[in-house]
Amino acid sequence: MKRVTIMGGILAFAMVAAVATAGPFGLTKMSDKSQECIECHKKESRGLYQMWGSSKHYRANVGCYECHAAEKSDPDALLHYDNTISIIVSPKDCARCHEQEVEEYLGSHHSKAARILGSLDNVLAEIVEGNSDFVTPGFPEGNSAAAVNGCWQCHGSQVKVLPGGTLDPATWPNTGIGRLNPDGSEGSCSACHSRHSFSVAQARQPENCGKCHMGPDHPQLEIYNESKHGIAYHGNKDKMNLDSPKWVVGEDYWAAPTCATCHMSATKNQPVTHDVGMRISWNNRPPVSVRPEVSDAKMGLPGKNVPWQVRRQNMNDVCLNCHNQSWIDNFYTQYDGLVDLYNEKFAKPSGQLNSLAKAAKELPVSFTHEADWAYWELWHHEGRRARHGAAMMGPDYTHWHGTYDVAKTFYTHYVPALKELIEEAHDSGDAGRIQAAEALQAKLDEVLNSDNHKWFLGKMDPEEAARRKKAAEEFKARYK
Amino acid sequence: MKRVTIMGGILAFAMVAAVATAGPFGLTKMSDKSQECIECHKKESRGLYQMWGSSKHYRANVGCYECHAAEKSDPDALLHYDNTISIIVSPKDCARCHEQEVEEYLGSHHSKAARILGSLDNVLAEIVEGNSDFVTPGFPEGNSAAAVNGCWQCHGSQVKVLPGGTLDPATWPNTGIGRLNPDGSEGSCSACHSRHSFSVAQARQPENCGKCHMGPDHPQLEIYNESKHGIAYHGNKDKMNLDSPKWVVGEDYWAAPTCATCHMSATKNQPVTHDVGMRISWNNRPPVSVRPEVSDAKMGLPGKNVPWQVRRQNMNDVCLNCHNQSWIDNFYTQYDGLVDLYNEKFAKPSGQLNSLAKAAKELPVSFTHEADWAYWELWHHEGRRARHGAAMMGPDYTHWHGTYDVAKTFYTHYVPALKELIEEAHDSGDAGRIQAAEALQAKLDEVLNSDNHKWFLGKMDPEEAARRKKAAEEFKARYK
Amino acid sequence: MKRVTIMGGILAFAMVAAVATAGPFGLTKMSDKSQECIECHKKESRGLYQMWGSSKHYRANVGCYECHAAEKSDPDALLHYDNTISIIVSPKDCARCHEQEVEEYLGSHHSKAARILGSLDNVLAEIVEGNSDFVTPGFPEGNSAAAVNGCWQCHGSQVKVLPGGTLDPATWPNTGIGRLNPDGSEGSCSACHSRHSFSVAQARQPENCGKCHMGPDHPQLEIYNESKHGIAYHGNKDKMNLDSPKWVVGEDYWAAPTCATCHMSATKNQPVTHDVGMRISWNNRPPVSVRPEVSDAKMGLPGKNVPWQVRRQNMNDVCLNCHNQSWIDNFYTQYDGLVDLYNEKFAKPSGQLNSLAKAAKELPVSFTHEADWAYWELWHHEGRRARHGAAMMGPDYTHWHGTYDVAKTFYTHYVPALKELIEEAHDSGDAGRIQAAEALQAKLDEVLNSDNHKWFLGKMDPEEAARRKKAAEEFKARYK
Repeated sequence: MKRVTIMGGILAFAMVAAVATAGPFGLTKMSDKSQECIECHKKESRGLYQMWGSSKHYRANVGCYECHAAEKSDPDALLHYDNTISIIVSPKDCARCHEQEVEEYLGSHHSKAARILGSLDNVLAEIVEGNSDFVTPGFPEGNSAAAVNGCWQCHGSQVKVLPGGTLDPATWPNTGIGRLNPDGSEGSCSACHSRHSFSVAQARQPENCGKCHMGPDHPQLEIYNESKHGIAYHGNKDKMNLDSPKWVVGEDYWAAPTCATCHMSATKNQPVTHDVGMRISWNNRPPVSVRPEVSDAKMGLPGKNVPWQVRRQNMNDVCLNCHNQSWIDNFYTQYDGLVDLYNEKFAKPSGQLNSLAKAAKELPVSFTHEADWAYWELWHHEGRRARHGAAMMGPDYTHWHGTYDVAKTFYTHYVPALKELIEEAHDSGDAGRIQAAEALQAKLDEVLNSDNHKWFLGKMDPEEAARRKKAAEEFKARYK
Repeated sequence: MKRVTIMGGILAFAMVAAVATAGPFGLTKMSDKSQECIECHKKESRGLYQMWGSSKHYRANVGCYECHAAEKSDPDALLHYDNTISIIVSPKDCARCHEQEVEEYLGSHHSKAARILGSLDNVLAEIVEGNSDFVTPGFPEGNSAAAVNGCWQCHGSQVKVLPGGTLDPATWPNTGIGRLNPDGSEGSCSACHSRHSFSVAQARQPENCGKCHMGPDHPQLEIYNESKHGIAYHGNKDKMNLDSPKWVVGEDYWAAPTCATCHMSATKNQPVTHDVGMRISWNNRPPVSVRPEVSDAKMGLPGKNVPWQVRRQNMNDVCLNCHNQSWIDNFYTQYDGLVDLYNEKFAKPSGQLNSLAKAAKELPVSFTHEADWAYWELWHHEGRRARHGAAMMGPDYTHWHGTYDVAKTFYTHYVPALKELIEEAHDSGDAGRIQAAEALQAKLDEVLNSDNHKWFLGKMDPEEAARRKKAAEEFKARYK
Repeated sequence: MKRVTIMGGILAFAMVAAVATAGPFGLTKMSDKSQECIECHKKESRGLYQMWGSSKHYRANVGCYECHAAEKSDPDALLHYDNTISIIVSPKDCARCHEQEVEEYLGSHHSKAARILGSLDNVLAEIVEGNSDFVTPGFPEGNSAAAVNGCWQCHGSQVKVLPGGTLDPATWPNTGIGRLNPDGSEGSCSACHSRHSFSVAQARQPENCGKCHMGPDHPQLEIYNESKHGIAYHGNKDKMNLDSPKWVVGEDYWAAPTCATCHMSATKNQPVTHDVGMRISWNNRPPVSVRPEVSDAKMGLPGKNVPWQVRRQNMNDVCLNCHNQSWIDNFYTQYDGLVDLYNEKFAKPSGQLNSLAKAAKELPVSFTHEADWAYWELWHHEGRRARHGAAMMGPDYTHWHGTYDVAKTFYTHYVPALKELIEEAHDSGDAGRIQAAEALQAKLDEVLNSDNHKWFLGKMDPEEAARRKKAAEEFKARYK
């Protein structure tokens, strides 16, 4: 939306006025336009009106019109009684008052979440799980309802405006964090700052992040809840001072850290940031973990110039509020060790096998062979769980939902599926597939005979095997 | 229990007395009988006594005897010291004071939850998981402990009274919501209104519904917790005014909706209702979603005359407190789209295949073939998760626990199991099975070659395939 | 650590002094040494300092030095500026003030949790999921990062001290409940009593136990949350009086029981205990449930002399606060019935089959055959879920996560894997394996033809089958 002129004017004036009258930050009075909106909406949308009434916006005289006003030339301008408004308030709109927050956010992966077009997630939702039968006014060729109700709700839709300024139902309601807005901006502040109370306390709570950061492929909320951090939070929520404008760990609260504490909020040395990647030293999203500056570079984000060591130092500064340096150093040694184990034992060989498997398959299409599914869940679900579990110290997720599931999938699902694939290729009589199968077989032999996997072939070193047998027998005698 | 005369008399008198003395609603004083109970139970059952002490019943002088008194002719009458009482307080008993609530409840599916006898759930618990070795005084022929400890605890047991008025341990403790009581009534108010505080605040909280509405086959609690509604609730529980007798959304609270808000509680236009089906426009329980009036008709419930459009309008009235009409309309378009996708792409063809598979199997018994298990989980677990996820806007449940799992089961479990079944039938030499297998094969071919599934055979339209390949390559370059 | 002399002296003096001056329990003033620590740490570790400031330790003038002081001869003595301290405060240290608590704890399974060396869990983490590539200064031969980040975080590490008194990163940070400390003691009080607030309220909350008691292999937290106990807790947390020093159920609180209430905390007849096994009447950890005195005897614990009937009576005393005796008796009948069902129908025959399967396998190594995995999950994950679900009245866990999953694994995973194994053995031509396969086949036939399983072969009694068919048809007509 190009409301900068008109609205910027209003706010600029207000700021001056506020200063002039020594009033609080915000507008000196509610605008007539907003008063007009309220007349009706306090009857028709009582809950919404009251939520706004409980917000800092209300106290600052920022009403309906201040955020929803639009210019007639805006792509999503809508005539609502006598007023030109737009339904969506985009980050560009919020930036008129919250400029720095939006800027930080636009530098983060969060704002790019809708760029999953073309990813395997998308193939799943559009082809495997879905079809194109969800036809809406704006999409006569259809969408997949699995994408609309699933992926897009977290990642964001590409909002389509219908004639008259209403929004296409395939693309809205949608508060996906990377939403592509009619005004060309990326993102949705209300993904985390829920309308219309915009409660900072809520935004600081772990449940808020759990809208998206949960479930089989990235159970951060579940891991947090299992961790000592989460336990302390749930045990001391009333001591967290969550409503405080200033919220410096160790100063305004100390009972527990939430997601925000570690990844975003202020310490005595660091200001709050809306770029959530600035304190993480691994990006555990891809099949093989990479350093965050590597993934930032691939997306063209400014973080490409911020090496992981700097980010780890940022996090270290948070940790120091409750842990000493040797604790933190040792923790990172443990965490790095788990990432290495996953990367080296499972992720890299599995990925290499997957590349070789493609040419041996009957069909080039993804998810048409059991081996595709196995590899997908190994890295996208289970491998992430293991790494996120270690990152946040949730041992059950690290192990039972993590490395245990990775290993189970590898040995009982992926390897057998690859063997079957090799057999199918040989049976096909197709020279290309047979050649591919031979390469795959050679790689599989190499992997299974490596130090990491040879136990599965019964080739453990005799000494090691003897030592283990003895320990197992002692255990059985004692503890069965 | 037929305590209506004696107890109705007591209460009728009390009401008159209360009016006469301008006292509060309830009895003017605690009865001598209840005083007698309390003398002992305040020592022997201290927690129970105190919970009752915190209840509205206490304030209304409704004591032990007012609810537990029985006539000697009652089927579960029990001589307890000098008093004739019954252990179970049935909906019929509660109706003496809470008539309208019980009536509404008896019109709902909740009160019919014990009618699962003969369903596949039951076959599972009694045969597949269980046996008849749980022998109790009232059941010399035995029950299945899996049904007793599992199914019946949510659905309700058929309570059996032993000589002397005690209750058979197979059938009680039990607060299943459709419990079949000794007095012939259906249901258990304490399923939701926990003894002995009967806290309305607790009944309004989502955890209360989560006693049953959770888990792999209907994770409503998990979905709620993921949704913006649940996030707002957990972030603002202390602002929910949960203890208020009058609890009108938008008026007495507005921070968040709970399960009760949307499905039961009052709005400025609607009274509270104990018929939980009056605001839902799909019944997502069966393999293929149906409209609620259809399932009400099958159970002979009065709701058979209330079409889904009316119920959706009821819900719309709730939504309007916090959302505008275009938001709500678009939401329902999204939700309906997901139900349609599931119904058409997976549910209907899977059900048809399942019907044809039966005659091709070696054994007519359910759950003896892998294909039975696959179909069961596809609709009973995963298909419900997808639909419930969309209904309540929990995108992770819609997608990863929902349509993703449906598709995975369909392509990697159900279809292969059906192919195996076809092969087995051909190998059997049994003419009947071979014929059935041929019909099944024909249907399977038809399904897999349909627009919804032909991608799995590598038959995607070349244009579509090219477009997707390009998008995937762009993605890889950017985001790997 | 051998700080008993020096510290015991300090405290003994303090106690005397406290009595002499009629001061509160604790030390009369903060020691100079602790004052010195605080000077720096209140700046460097602000959160930690404040947590301690909110603790009872602060009020009792128990500061940093009182707990962390060490003698130079202590194995983990560390020179920190001018002071000799140790990082780890072990149960032996805590026992100087909390003697009885530590003694009870040392008699419990909790303190022995690190004795899993040699168990299958360990094989999994070290061989199957892991490797020895996690090399640290103290372990040049390496550890498995899956064990370090997974198992050990709950069970406890064997802490290794490096030259200078720092701790090896493979073994610390670690607060596993059975940690093997440098001073030879077992356990970690901070597993449950989180540093540095040591909040008793937090320790009494179910989330605290959920650090370890959750997840696929023992989801006690999830079961509790589903149960009426958990619902009442979440609905009434603010009425739980969790901060009260005296916390007697029915006296100081009554709104709900937490894990602590039933397993540890005081009743009017029982004192609080830190031996968590003294109120349980089944040990549901092993493949087949045993009585707790049996497992205590195997570990050489004093509980070997406390029969399950005594422990059940202890729990009964807790239950009586809110339930009457007939409720409790009936509950135990239900629970015992479920344990029996699992033990007899699934656990015993599955274990026997597993023993016979070993000799038929190609490799003697665990987890190299599908049948190994199936048996493992059947008892270690699913069988526990069913039993724990029944123990704590979470019907969904008893059934869908429990007996349903047990049965599904048994019929669709374990039995087919055993059949495959038999075939493989016959194909091998190895006389020993063939003989083993024949024994396995005979046992499998016996199991499947037993009353518990013959339905799977289509051998249900015709009468029973007819009765069930009729019920199913009635159901279909009514409820489809």
